Amino acid sequence: MSLLVVGSVAFDALESPYGKVDRAVGGAATYFAVAASFFTPVSLVAIVGDDFTSRDEEIFRGRHIDTDGLEHAAGKTFFWAGRYSENLNERVTLATDLNVFAEFKPRLPEKYRKLKYVFLANIAPELQRDVLHQVKVRPKLAALDTMNYWIERSNAELRETLKHVDILMINDSETRELSNEHNLLRAAKHIFKMGPTTLVVKRGEYGAMMVDKRGVFCVPAFPLEEPHDPTGAGDSFAGGFMGYLAGCGEKSDAALRRAMVYGSVLGSFAVEKFGVERLRHLKRSEIPARARHFAKLTQFKL
Amino acid sequence: MSLLVVGSVAFDALESPYGKVDRAVGGAATYFAVAASFFTPVSLVAIVGDDFTSRDEEIFRGRHIDTDGLEHAAGKTFFWAGRYSENLNERVTLATDLNVFAEFKPRLPEKYRKLKYVFLANIAPELQRDVLHQVKVRPKLAALDTMNYWIERSNAELRETLKHVDILMINDSETRELSNEHNLLRAAKHIFKMGPTTLVVKRGEYGAMMVDKRGVFCVPAFPLEEPHDPTGAGDSFAGGFMGYLAGCGEKSDAALRRAMVYGSVLGSFAVEKFGVERLRHLKRSEIPARARHFAKLTQFKL
Repeated sequence: MSLLVVGSVAFDALESPYGKVDRAVGGAATYFAVAASFFTPVSLVAIVGDDFTSRDEEIFRGRHIDTDGLEHAAGKTFFWAGRYSENLNERVTLATDLNVFAEFKPRLPEKYRKLKYVFLANIAPELQRDVLHQVKVRPKLAALDTMNYWIERSNAELRETLKHVDILMINDSETRELSNEHNLLRAAKHIFKMGPTTLVVKRGEYGAMMVDKRGVFCVPAFPLEEPHDPTGAGDSFAGGFMGYLAGCGEKSDAALRRAMVYGSVLGSFAVEKFGVERLRHLKRSEIPARARHFAKLTQFKL
Repeated sequence: MSLLVVGSVAFDALESPYGKVDRAVGGAATYFAVAASFFTPVSLVAIVGDDFTSRDEEIFRGRHIDTDGLEHAAGKTFFWAGRYSENLNERVTLATDLNVFAEFKPRLPEKYRKLKYVFLANIAPELQRDVLHQVKVRPKLAALDTMNYWIERSNAELRETLKHVDILMINDSETRELSNEHNLLRAAKHIFKMGPTTLVVKRGEYGAMMVDKRGVFCVPAFPLEEPHDPTGAGDSFAGGFMGYLAGCGEKSDAALRRAMVYGSVLGSFAVEKFGVERLRHLKRSEIPARARHFAKLTQFKL
């Protein structure tokens, strides 16, 4: 089933001990769409400037990614520059030039308005809500990512938007800030009162945790000896997670657990190379192989 | 098979948002011995002062814990006082009075010298090595815990001791400091060159990770809504881990994975109440029940 994603497409400048790129296609919606497209067709809604060429758009081509919702506006594409510390565990933002993204008003092509799976990447909560209004029937599954910036500055808007989503996918510190609760189980209970029925907490090198009324499921991060670039890991995780669910059309506990694994698989590939390069060259057959590695990593018999 | 543990028995003063105790029996060897005794007989080597009464010793009684190696010396028992932050994620040490522990020279009763399973809790590396010398035949499995203090101040002694142990059980920051390597997989490779063939990294709220030449195994921490006191969690983990292995007499990959789970089970019980209280009242039947919870927490079918 086709999966709608609304979020940023950007140019990233990245520096890590493993290298440097001055202008690579990035942005949450890019990582998400590429990761998800291994499982299901994706419909992309985002905005780019007139500096975003047909060549830049190649990342979406030859995949099941519909870019009719990719708006081309006069001006420059969202630009982000960041530098990672030697251990990749700290990141300094060197530049955030919103450019055309500052005026982004997501507009869903008519054919997108009946989509049943929706992912709202990290954008202003009022824009996320507006996207949900444009979708005609309540989706089978709507998931949302956000960040501390919106939790702090648009809290009421975010709360209003959360009433209409099923899955909240955020990191540890966002979970704690949104719920005002350090303990993640208690945090989940607060968040369930806000609307979502499932909380997925992305924990970087520690993996991810899913909490719903059926319980808790944990998956570790894939141990890599030489991760090159953490950029987009969370968005690739979200893409693998939602892509798997949209592809299989189920939302049973077993399906959600598999989605957590496929999310982790895609996140682990994303960090292996700079920017979106590893996902760009990823072969479909590498996915089940790595998923089996995750089984080996976690499974035991009592 | 009986399991030898050498380490500290102490009085702890603890403060957390959940309460306060002025003098509770604690110490690494105490948590370890109690946790391990659910799986196998334990032989304890430690030192206490003349303030350590028969009543204090009750924690070891009625369990399979041989205290013939518990030396009673003139003077006061090792005393440690600590306070936890509101979220239990930070700890301030208020007092560390070594007392009789400063003169601890572990002496193994004759009957302990043929034991096949040995755990060297966190004490000076030269004392750990001396214990290994007193054991007549190379143990089937020797494991060691240490801390930043020894890594920094007795590095050569620690390196010498590590040549003679199979399993190193330390936390993230100790792993990084000992190996001078941030990435845990690369850190494990450095550590394997020092002697141990298995590295167990204790990661607090994120669980634990085991690395050996066969690969990596991860187990999450048990999600608890209201942990009361993290004191002794790592030592209880070690007790469950080594106790299980000594009890089953195996060291296959499957056995080590189960040991990781039973370690996590005991660690999770330890933090539920203040000090050693939860372990003191733990029923044997609660252990397999929680181990099954760990299975539910981690298992998936692709």
